[in-house]
Amino acid sequence: MNLFKHELRIEDEEKMIAITDTVRGDIEKSGIVSGIVTIYCPHTTAGITINENADADVQHDFLYGFGKIFPKYDNEYLHEEGNSFAHMKSSAVGASKTVIIENGRMILGIWQDIYFCEFDGPRNRYFYVKIIKG
Amino acid sequence: MNLFKHELRIEDEEKMIAITDTVRGDIEKSGIVSGIVTIYCPHTTAGITINENADADVQHDFLYGFGKIFPKYDNEYLHEEGNSFAHMKSSAVGASKTVIIENGRMILGIWQDIYFCEFDGPRNRYFYVKIIKG
Amino acid sequence: MNLFKHELRIEDEEKMIAITDTVRGDIEKSGIVSGIVTIYCPHTTAGITINENADADVQHDFLYGFGKIFPKYDNEYLHEEGNSFAHMKSSAVGASKTVIIENGRMILGIWQDIYFCEFDGPRNRYFYVKIIKG
Repeated sequence: MNLFKHELRIEDEEKMIAITDTVRGDIEKSGIVSGIVTIYCPHTTAGITINENADADVQHDFLYGFGKIFPKYDNEYLHEEGNSFAHMKSSAVGASKTVIIENGRMILGIWQDIYFCEFDGPRNRYFYVKIIKG
Repeated sequence: MNLFKHELRIEDEEKMIAITDTVRGDIEKSGIVSGIVTIYCPHTTAGITINENADADVQHDFLYGFGKIFPKYDNEYLHEEGNSFAHMKSSAVGASKTVIIENGRMILGIWQDIYFCEFDGPRNRYFYVKIIKG
Repeated sequence: MNLFKHELRIEDEEKMIAITDTVRGDIEKSGIVSGIVTIYCPHTTAGITINENADADVQHDFLYGFGKIFPKYDNEYLHEEGNSFAHMKSSAVGASKTVIIENGRMILGIWQDIYFCEFDGPRNRYFYVKIIKG
């Protein structure tokens, strides 16, 4: 098996949830020791990013900084659901990330975690992990 | 065959063009039922993103919001061609996206379409679709 | 061999370094003529992007424009290391890029180069290149 689906229940309006260990477990289950892994978010007001794992203040500053550049309210927005800011953040971080696998492990930097980014919670969310041998 | 090239004629200055059905057709032609697909934009003032497919107002708000953070004119810009804003948008959404394939179909969210994003039209543009089995 | 690691010594605070030729060399060494290549940055205050290769003013404008939207100082930032701006830029351009390979060559646009983006130098940095056959 080289495809995995995971569910997340997110209670907050915005949150970065580290999913690195889940991806690690999937790679182990796949038995693939060399290749790439794609982590995919099927939602349009959320995304996947890779960033600092040590100081949670980075997550605070990240969500704050992205909130400043993609403001919640603007007189020019047309989308009636009122969450255009979250759609823009989704495209800005991207729906997927690809990481290299070598010797059965992801080549992540020492400070890197993979994050599911919720921009319009609370929601029930999913993400997929696909491992390609090569 | 697992590589496809497509041409787009874009008449607008800025536009998001849904290319999901084209990618679906390519996957079918490839005969690959499990793997990943990379959609690639070879231009530096355009890009590929994945976002909402239902309400076209999201595209309006997206282009409006990105236009605010990457303004057309700024006294500090040096690039004589005058389209630095479009180069920045290109990097902000990214030149490619990778989507997972299972049972011959892309695992897209119900609200997701793949978009070619024009940021400096009108232009003749291309994009590539490459399908990797795995 | 289809995995390569490269070191960069970056003397500037911010800089975009073209690494396209390095990636080309790796693809040649791998002997893989059809597939995809993933270029990966293991740092959380740097990233990989694809953008204009002809006029270096685009790099100036890019770093200037990203500096405006992710400012260095803000009273709301909590991260004590003081480089939250660089973490945000890292996620905005992304930790990796994937390019298509055909006939032994990357399908890059005529104006495209692959750049390692330093947002918090001077630093010693690394990047990885992984080539997947397919």
